[in-house]
Amino acid sequence: MTNTSDKKNKNSLVVVVSAMSGVTDEILEWAKFFTPLPNERDLDMALSSGEQISGALLSIALNSMGHKSICLNGRQAKIYTDSNHTKARIQHIDTSHIKELLEQGYIVVVTGFQGLNDKGDITTLGRGGSDLSAVALAGALNAQACEIYSDVDGIYTTDPRIESKARKIEQISYDEMLELASMGAKVLLNRSVELAKKWNVPIFARSTFSDGKGTLITREDKIMEKPVVSGIALDKNQARVSLSGIKDKPGIAAELFSKLANANVNVDMIVQTIGRDGKTDLDFTVPKNELEKAKLTLNEFSQNADFIDFDNEVAIVSIVGVGMKSHSGVAAKAFESLAKDNINIRMISTSEIKISILIDLKYAELSVRTLHSAYNLDRF
Amino acid sequence: MTNTSDKKNKNSLVVVVSAMSGVTDEILEWAKFFTPLPNERDLDMALSSGEQISGALLSIALNSMGHKSICLNGRQAKIYTDSNHTKARIQHIDTSHIKELLEQGYIVVVTGFQGLNDKGDITTLGRGGSDLSAVALAGALNAQACEIYSDVDGIYTTDPRIESKARKIEQISYDEMLELASMGAKVLLNRSVELAKKWNVPIFARSTFSDGKGTLITREDKIMEKPVVSGIALDKNQARVSLSGIKDKPGIAAELFSKLANANVNVDMIVQTIGRDGKTDLDFTVPKNELEKAKLTLNEFSQNADFIDFDNEVAIVSIVGVGMKSHSGVAAKAFESLAKDNINIRMISTSEIKISILIDLKYAELSVRTLHSAYNLDRF
Repeated sequence: MTNTSDKKNKNSLVVVVSAMSGVTDEILEWAKFFTPLPNERDLDMALSSGEQISGALLSIALNSMGHKSICLNGRQAKIYTDSNHTKARIQHIDTSHIKELLEQGYIVVVTGFQGLNDKGDITTLGRGGSDLSAVALAGALNAQACEIYSDVDGIYTTDPRIESKARKIEQISYDEMLELASMGAKVLLNRSVELAKKWNVPIFARSTFSDGKGTLITREDKIMEKPVVSGIALDKNQARVSLSGIKDKPGIAAELFSKLANANVNVDMIVQTIGRDGKTDLDFTVPKNELEKAKLTLNEFSQNADFIDFDNEVAIVSIVGVGMKSHSGVAAKAFESLAKDNINIRMISTSEIKISILIDLKYAELSVRTLHSAYNLDRF
Repeated sequence: MTNTSDKKNKNSLVVVVSAMSGVTDEILEWAKFFTPLPNERDLDMALSSGEQISGALLSIALNSMGHKSICLNGRQAKIYTDSNHTKARIQHIDTSHIKELLEQGYIVVVTGFQGLNDKGDITTLGRGGSDLSAVALAGALNAQACEIYSDVDGIYTTDPRIESKARKIEQISYDEMLELASMGAKVLLNRSVELAKKWNVPIFARSTFSDGKGTLITREDKIMEKPVVSGIALDKNQARVSLSGIKDKPGIAAELFSKLANANVNVDMIVQTIGRDGKTDLDFTVPKNELEKAKLTLNEFSQNADFIDFDNEVAIVSIVGVGMKSHSGVAAKAFESLAKDNINIRMISTSEIKISILIDLKYAELSVRTLHSAYNLDRF
């Protein structure tokens, strides 16, 4: 994946590269050959080499095509991070050297995914780290935009593999993107979108393989036409946990969820009904691959509930759109159209820009298509 | 290849690594895919990554075995070079950081083959660069010795593929090693031996695959028993050029050799006979693959000689030994024993510690065996 950021000056270009396909995994495999837990300081040094190779080669290619280009690694680009090896956070970028080179007319190729800590050790930023480098550099350089290239040509109203009528979205707000991304539209990791929002960096999500404009991810107030609903997301990786007949007393939910957090179980949807007869029901979802961990925690908690029930055969379908803030009837339309197709709603949770509905897994794709059409997302 | 240097303190160890087999060539191939002449500043950045990967992985392995280890790249090891990318020369090593880590009990793994120039760009040292890094570090750290590991277990009295009775040499002087190496005993490049001589670093040339002591390369005055002849070297890559009937006037040879030098032709043996009747003969050798270049230059020079002759079917056999400085009859023994085997001597040139003899190519291996036995090199 290659990410480019255009600076204010029309001719200034910074290109952020990730490693060539498979190289990072290969290095990781070698390290794991010696030990399941490689020491992370040296591992970062090895891992960062992948971008150093691809970045230098890209610069060689650009030079050979007659462009004036230079490759900088994380140190040379002055990207400073904390010392959390393999998942470091960028703390500060000193853009002086990059700006100097841009002024001299260079295309500056920067190795993504990496930085330097205050000991002079190489750090890496974790998964999606190159996107993060690109967004952070674009922010620090006050770039006009940050273009992120991947194998898809933008953000779609829903997964085109499920609904062939899915349309590419031209513009979307950071918050909508965050909701869609967390539901499976994995063009960009949320870390990068959050950083772009914080630094106010417009992102173009574009394809490496085509010239299309892609999708612009930007501030809500920069989007001209705000559709009520921007997209439908589907998450088939959640399992439902239901606790019936919990004692309805303060602190009981807090106790449960802090126990789950301590066990590193990520809870997503949470629904609690009004208590009746001193008892209440509590439903929530956890990632399917964390269900076994969740069960261990729930065993310790079982004396507090009459009945605990699990369901792996569920999916969450979500309707996302900033426009729903100012429109009523959005949720009602979802319930109506699902009912018309005999899809039972198991749980509902809503936020300002999202309505999430838990349904039986077998209806997952159907409900996406039903909702996509209900909100006219298939029409231009 | 891995090179280690033991510091005065018995427990201190610095390990210099080269890239894993084939990695550097692979990176070079990628670069050449874009252009036959990759820009060298970026190429060095890509090339240096190979050692960064192998060094970090070695340190990970050492750590996983319970050793306290850390990998430093050229920058972190503070190896400073000039800016001659792809063939930089080490200018200075600031050992402060390495010494600090050694004092803290670390095994310090240093990426060989690379350094940093004064612009903060990564440089590489060219072929055999990792050996060079090891020798330079050993010198700068005032190490007890520098052990250089390769796939052979030391320096031999001659090439064992030619003479199976060749013996491993226990100790050899820098100068003898230089003469043997330049004649084809390619355990160590001359650059490294020259640097070791300059810094007075004892080198153990050892095998990666066995525990043998290898060969100690050291100062002549440190060698107890100085054999008259240490080894026999063979060079089959030279061609002979003969100019007959050159005007015997001052400056004519100088003109020829400066023309050849300008054409980047490396001249090795040079023999000129005493002039007779105002004319003289001049014979010299050039590498076989530079003979065509030499011919072009000689064409311009042809009016100065009666006759110019070339011979590709030759070889140079050399007798090397510091002991010959103080022994007479060494050359005579060579001529006698070659004559006994009916091997015609075409040219002779001698230096303080070397006698080089040009013979017909077909006698190359025979003459090595003849001389090896003549100087009793096959006896312990």
